[in-house]
Amino acid sequence: MTYCVAIRMREGMVFVADSRTNAGVDHIATFRKMHLFPGTDGNRAMVLMSAGNLATTQSVVSLLRQLDSEGNGLNACDSFYAAAELVGRTARSVVERDAGPRQEHVDFGSSFILGGQIRGDAMRLFHIYPEGNFIEASEDTPYLQIGEIKYGKPIIDRVISIDTPLDQGVKCALISMDSTIRSNLSVGMPLDLLIYHKNSFSLQSHYDIHDSHEGYQQLREAWSRGLADTFQTLPDMPWRTD
Amino acid sequence: MTYCVAIRMREGMVFVADSRTNAGVDHIATFRKMHLFPGTDGNRAMVLMSAGNLATTQSVVSLLRQLDSEGNGLNACDSFYAAAELVGRTARSVVERDAGPRQEHVDFGSSFILGGQIRGDAMRLFHIYPEGNFIEASEDTPYLQIGEIKYGKPIIDRVISIDTPLDQGVKCALISMDSTIRSNLSVGMPLDLLIYHKNSFSLQSHYDIHDSHEGYQQLREAWSRGLADTFQTLPDMPWRTD
Repeated sequence: MTYCVAIRMREGMVFVADSRTNAGVDHIATFRKMHLFPGTDGNRAMVLMSAGNLATTQSVVSLLRQLDSEGNGLNACDSFYAAAELVGRTARSVVERDAGPRQEHVDFGSSFILGGQIRGDAMRLFHIYPEGNFIEASEDTPYLQIGEIKYGKPIIDRVISIDTPLDQGVKCALISMDSTIRSNLSVGMPLDLLIYHKNSFSLQSHYDIHDSHEGYQQLREAWSRGLADTFQTLPDMPWRTD
Repeated sequence: MTYCVAIRMREGMVFVADSRTNAGVDHIATFRKMHLFPGTDGNRAMVLMSAGNLATTQSVVSLLRQLDSEGNGLNACDSFYAAAELVGRTARSVVERDAGPRQEHVDFGSSFILGGQIRGDAMRLFHIYPEGNFIEASEDTPYLQIGEIKYGKPIIDRVISIDTPLDQGVKCALISMDSTIRSNLSVGMPLDLLIYHKNSFSLQSHYDIHDSHEGYQQLREAWSRGLADTFQTLPDMPWRTD
């Protein structure tokens, strides 16, 4: 599986993706699931993350890159809405090409998160479904997840709002990923981290986080220690057991 | 859906079950999923929790109660292994009775957690699958979950071992449940909490926890506050965003 999460806050956005793919536990590999579309004129910055059938997601990304080289891709979209439509249309066309009548048991579907900013518009964040339709993150629900989403959802639900400072959002997204990795073997290191600053139109803050990454290790350890400490100081219950 | 969790520690066991069932969001109801089998001679204590098809789980519990009244039920089992076998056999017989050839689209399956102690044996904890087969919790993996298990798994993975004190295990199970309820609408209050003390052969420590339960509220609030405080004190990252 996969786990990808993106959060849109007032100050900016954060995107985190793992890199493990598996077709059964004996076929595990590392593939990047975060794809950057920085634009060419300094007026746009787009990030695409993918989950689901690896053949489909790779084809979709290849086709989108090819469309860009022909001048009809994401870089040519006037709006983020049009970009989300293009990703959905491309994904549907790949599935229609690959899924034949004798392959009902294969799931060709893929989900995508597309986020970023085009000059003149606000930051936008979309979740594109395997069917090609899509939803957008809102002020009330400022985050989107694809893949193995459940393990890492509680911490986001507790911490994140549209007003969360960007650096806190980054920490929360990484902790959400860490919780998922600890509980699910099919999600694994290394991670892609992308921090987007509002109105920067830059994808420069992109980090490749391996197991030995010092900052990530410190964050994980501080969080584990903090949880343990919090646990020790919880009030005793009326159903005390001693 | 449902969420049930049970943990076996050296000092005792804890069982927590929610009580929400749904067949679509417009058919939500409250049914208890924790069933106590206290025995009749002070030599055994058994707890059964269920998830899955409500008709199947209710039938299984009814049949087990009837078997007990006839002297062939859980109370007559010499061992916990035999009890787990009986639950599995009963569940399979109900599914075989109800699932007809024109009902392939209906999932009649149910999962069960069966735990407790019979005098002369250690505390035991089993997960019985819809197929009727089962696994047992171990020293390495001292907890079992059924239903919506993913949201509440990370906190257990971080905190619980066989050596965890019983009162900490109770708090952890309740926090795992709270995290699930916050993130998934199909899991809801009230809760059943059962604390079993090793070699007590008593199911007296059974609590019915409603929204207004003071201890549970304090626990939830202390945990939320502790998480928020921990979050505030996390180290700044090399990818500082200001």
